[in-house]
Amino acid sequence: MKPRFLPAALGALVLGSTLHADEGMWLYTDPPREQIRAKYGFELTDAWLDHLMKSSVRFNSGGSGSFVSEDGLVISNHHVGADALQKVSTEKKNLLHDGFHARTAAEEIRCVDLELNVLQSIEDVTARVNAAVPAGTSAEESFKARRRETAAIEKESLAKTGLRSDVVTLYQGGAYHLYRFKKYTDVRLVFAPEQQVAFFGGDPDNFEYPRFDLDVCLFRVYEGGKPAKVPHHLAWSAKGAAAGELTFVSGHPGRTDRLLTVAELEYLRVAAYPYTLERLKRREVLLTSWGQRSEENARRCRDDLFGAQNSHKARDGGHAGLYDPALMKAKADAEAAFRARLRGRPEFADALAAYDTIAGVQKTIGAIALRYRLLEGGHAFACDSFGIARMLLRAGEEFPKANGERLREFGDAGKESLELGLFSDKPVFEDLEILGLADSLTFLAEKLGASDPMVVRVLDGKSPRARARELVRTTKVRDVGFRRQLYAGGAAAVNAAADPMVEAARMVDGEARELRRQIESAEETRKQAHAAIARARFALDGAGSYPDATFTLRLSYGVVKGYEEDGKQIPALTTLAGLYARAEAQHYKPPFDLPGRWIKKRSALDLSTPFNFVGTHDIIGGNSGSPVVNRAGEFVGIIFDGNLQSLVLDFAYDDVQARSLSVHSAGILEALRKTYGATALADELVRGNRTR
Amino acid sequence: MKPRFLPAALGALVLGSTLHADEGMWLYTDPPREQIRAKYGFELTDAWLDHLMKSSVRFNSGGSGSFVSEDGLVISNHHVGADALQKVSTEKKNLLHDGFHARTAAEEIRCVDLELNVLQSIEDVTARVNAAVPAGTSAEESFKARRRETAAIEKESLAKTGLRSDVVTLYQGGAYHLYRFKKYTDVRLVFAPEQQVAFFGGDPDNFEYPRFDLDVCLFRVYEGGKPAKVPHHLAWSAKGAAAGELTFVSGHPGRTDRLLTVAELEYLRVAAYPYTLERLKRREVLLTSWGQRSEENARRCRDDLFGAQNSHKARDGGHAGLYDPALMKAKADAEAAFRARLRGRPEFADALAAYDTIAGVQKTIGAIALRYRLLEGGHAFACDSFGIARMLLRAGEEFPKANGERLREFGDAGKESLELGLFSDKPVFEDLEILGLADSLTFLAEKLGASDPMVVRVLDGKSPRARARELVRTTKVRDVGFRRQLYAGGAAAVNAAADPMVEAARMVDGEARELRRQIESAEETRKQAHAAIARARFALDGAGSYPDATFTLRLSYGVVKGYEEDGKQIPALTTLAGLYARAEAQHYKPPFDLPGRWIKKRSALDLSTPFNFVGTHDIIGGNSGSPVVNRAGEFVGIIFDGNLQSLVLDFAYDDVQARSLSVHSAGILEALRKTYGATALADELVRGNRTR
Repeated sequence: MKPRFLPAALGALVLGSTLHADEGMWLYTDPPREQIRAKYGFELTDAWLDHLMKSSVRFNSGGSGSFVSEDGLVISNHHVGADALQKVSTEKKNLLHDGFHARTAAEEIRCVDLELNVLQSIEDVTARVNAAVPAGTSAEESFKARRRETAAIEKESLAKTGLRSDVVTLYQGGAYHLYRFKKYTDVRLVFAPEQQVAFFGGDPDNFEYPRFDLDVCLFRVYEGGKPAKVPHHLAWSAKGAAAGELTFVSGHPGRTDRLLTVAELEYLRVAAYPYTLERLKRREVLLTSWGQRSEENARRCRDDLFGAQNSHKARDGGHAGLYDPALMKAKADAEAAFRARLRGRPEFADALAAYDTIAGVQKTIGAIALRYRLLEGGHAFACDSFGIARMLLRAGEEFPKANGERLREFGDAGKESLELGLFSDKPVFEDLEILGLADSLTFLAEKLGASDPMVVRVLDGKSPRARARELVRTTKVRDVGFRRQLYAGGAAAVNAAADPMVEAARMVDGEARELRRQIESAEETRKQAHAAIARARFALDGAGSYPDATFTLRLSYGVVKGYEEDGKQIPALTTLAGLYARAEAQHYKPPFDLPGRWIKKRSALDLSTPFNFVGTHDIIGGNSGSPVVNRAGEFVGIIFDGNLQSLVLDFAYDDVQARSLSVHSAGILEALRKTYGATALADELVRGNRTR
Repeated sequence: MKPRFLPAALGALVLGSTLHADEGMWLYTDPPREQIRAKYGFELTDAWLDHLMKSSVRFNSGGSGSFVSEDGLVISNHHVGADALQKVSTEKKNLLHDGFHARTAAEEIRCVDLELNVLQSIEDVTARVNAAVPAGTSAEESFKARRRETAAIEKESLAKTGLRSDVVTLYQGGAYHLYRFKKYTDVRLVFAPEQQVAFFGGDPDNFEYPRFDLDVCLFRVYEGGKPAKVPHHLAWSAKGAAAGELTFVSGHPGRTDRLLTVAELEYLRVAAYPYTLERLKRREVLLTSWGQRSEENARRCRDDLFGAQNSHKARDGGHAGLYDPALMKAKADAEAAFRARLRGRPEFADALAAYDTIAGVQKTIGAIALRYRLLEGGHAFACDSFGIARMLLRAGEEFPKANGERLREFGDAGKESLELGLFSDKPVFEDLEILGLADSLTFLAEKLGASDPMVVRVLDGKSPRARARELVRTTKVRDVGFRRQLYAGGAAAVNAAADPMVEAARMVDGEARELRRQIESAEETRKQAHAAIARARFALDGAGSYPDATFTLRLSYGVVKGYEEDGKQIPALTTLAGLYARAEAQHYKPPFDLPGRWIKKRSALDLSTPFNFVGTHDIIGGNSGSPVVNRAGEFVGIIFDGNLQSLVLDFAYDDVQARSLSVHSAGILEALRKTYGATALADELVRGNRTR
């Protein structure tokens, strides 16, 4: 998940009560046919849905995309591709910053560790998963039993179909669906604009509107060393989205929190958000200071820094929402009203009790959350070397266990992906590693106290800076060959190597694992409590709803539509002319400095071409890169952000001001043809296949 | 105090034990004559000291300076003048950023609220202050009695001499000195370079070396509407400082913590520094995000943002020092050794007991520090409007009381300065006020919890954003006329006005005052405990030492000298050529973008001219702008920063790597003449008076 934005949704503060307007991140197995027919007179057919589903792509680095040519061409956001761009960049050739254009297939660059998934089928396995957990099983045992069963289902499915198979928990445990994906691991970079225009306005304009971003990136999937022939792709609409038009978004919203109880929201407000924001802002300041020392430093930490800035802004918005008395009151009122309906009905006794259970779980988690995040969450060890070292340590310990007994990330079904990540030769910079580790070790000592036994053990009598320097400089885990050797040799090889960073990971691993066990057990209790509430809700209000987001494929719908802000009407669409106007107003200073190519080609462009637009779609982080399609199923735009007003609403949909932000298909085409002279690529989009 | 840097000092981890090398921030009443005679064979004469003292200038906005012409010309740092520059800037004419040069006296711009002080005499009033506090008086009563007595001394002195009179507490209460200052309140701006070159390298190069900064700013003091004739000024050395040369620094180090006990250092490490750093980084991120939205935003928050960046970097360095086991061990060992010497000697019983007293005080303070900082420290109300509102509220309540009974800032002696600040028409921006207040109200709610009664009262059922918007938009305190009216009308007028921001200040004032009373009482106990230790130390080790810094005039000495870092020798001096080289290496990108004038005039400059240099002087924040003089008492440079290595050492002097950073007098002259064509000004510096 790379949540570039966390937009959200309409008036209905608690899901499952009456749905409003264009609310919903719908399952493909339960699409909002009636709502759309009633409101827009449009019929969602099975064929229409199947085509859109199989044209949709999930980026495992976080984000969404879609096929836009039968020759495996995939479009997503530049910021979704950023991780891949960073990894194929070098000190001399900064593709993330400068952009890239492969004029021929031979020039396409293979990405280091990018994996794309295309959903092929969805199967309801709720009955089988539940059957594995007899009534009366303890929370901890339930969790294990369920994990064993889902691991078994995934393994069987993989063996049978050869497809990546993930069991997805929906409705907080109300349902389990098996998602099967076709997996592409040979993904090549085809086109990326300069970051200046992809993220024009940078952090300052992030989450703002009007916007002027060419936030797109094109890849091509390969099979057998050749461009893959894909059975489904979206036809390109050269005209694109129009104001007032009904459109659909097919993508992978990462996470929503619409079913949280007041106790949970309160915890987010007083504990979780403040902690996360403190950590993010600390990291942002750290990377900013360091990045400004030289251009090379800036390149090395650009992606990390952007992540921190983006996350803090998104979370500041969400946090502000939790301090909105109106929102909190609406949540409290709705909860009280629903609990009143449960009272005196024995069949809902478990649902009624669930609220107290959840409040209790929240307390349990609150008591250990800090240590859990520092030690198991790795917040005390903010460097890639530690992550790799721990992965090696645990791989040696986990793989000898039965599949169902392992920590989730070591399950057989995910082994290939794990290895792809572990053996990636993504560059890791010693100086940046020391910087991050020194700061996070200081954070550890601050949070737990310098005399905490774990802190004493980890620091080993040295200052955080000295200890970080020592660990990062002496570990060998940044050598991929060394990693392969330890991974292949298992625990014996790992122990024999006595690598300092692996040994540091070992120091905390006992407590880290125990904390994780406690948290997972508490989360299981929470999940069961939510499932009880969910069951009561379905029983009382009927189905026809949608589960919270889970980074699985969902369908949203809405109209292209502006909004009012401080008494001013914000129009639905911007144009290329607006891009130049904003740059001029800011005197072309970063991050409003257009690339030279854009300055030069200005007169060649039709400046009235639509560039970005907003809509009422119910989306959230993870939807980045989702295709926006019209009734004909044609690609008319691509989601890349949500506006500021949408940030407040992680917890409830709104269509008054909250808006999805997209790049317009006509703007993309205009830029490809006239700014970049990418004629063959533009032709491929319009025709739906490569020139031969 | 505007601590642009917090440099420090040598090996002697506890002051009062043997002094090392060039250690010491010496009182003018007790200069290090013997040390300098012994080490350098130079005689500090009374005349030499008196001339330097009366040529030294204190900037009440924070920082130091000196007279450099008999016509009242004062030189300081650009960053010391930044506050004044900001206040005379407008949206169209950004003097802070673009620089300024008055070619004639008529063009000199009067500063809004800048006050300069020149020390005239020092009188030891220890006996009189102590006589006012009979033995056996409680801590709280002692504090009040002492404040009454110092207020009386200050008032008498002001009446008698017409000079600003401040009683300064030295040696943690071991001594009280009456400092009398000639005060200049008509101060005009003469020259400032562009911020780009004054702070070349910006935050990235802050605290770094080698450096290339023209961090200077020139003002002129006026009396009776005419340039003042000043009796003392420093002769300008066109040649300037040379490597290895003995030089002196005369300035106002703000604060050192060299006498802190281990309990106090531990408190700084676990509580004070983490809190302050969290707050600073939060503010830095807030202002950065907002400033980047537009050029006007950036201008409005530039000074605030710079302050936050600078403080966080300085404190991160100090905090890292507290995590250095070697430093903490040396402190602990020295303390244990000294306590051992006190044991069994009844005459030092109070000193021995003092260590436990201090540890107890630290606990008392720790328990209320958070609420104290939020409510009395104003951290919950980070906007100027609140500060003004509270000043009006308290002025109405305090001035009717007897002088000695008032809160310190309302004492008669400081009344003129208070009014200068309160009636300043320094611009206050509504949008920036709302931004800061909304964020700090959120901070308040996070830290105390949304259900804390004080938080509930302050937020008044609204979100922090809504409440901030309401308070800032409806208050009238940003109107200077309104302020004058309320101030003149006293409590009755303040109450009648019922201004929303004043009423918000009133909401917290009861608890804020009570917290302040408790903290001041605890601090008084701490002060007495430190005084007991200080007395024992003097008794055992003799005098010939210096007190911790107190933002009063001190003399430091040292040599112009490079240092070794990571096996590399860093030379003592940089040149103008180095400035251009660094700019080129960074492709002239901000903050390495030289002003156009510097690009154009490059060939006119003698690039071998020295530009910046480092020395072993014992300095700290507040010393910014201090003149560096040679044996002849000539101006050879001006302090503007300390290097990174000096940051660790707020608590102890070091001369291995810690260095003071200065701008060289030859570099200043070269730039004035050739880059700026400021011939008359350069001539005035060299000749010591204006052309007539």
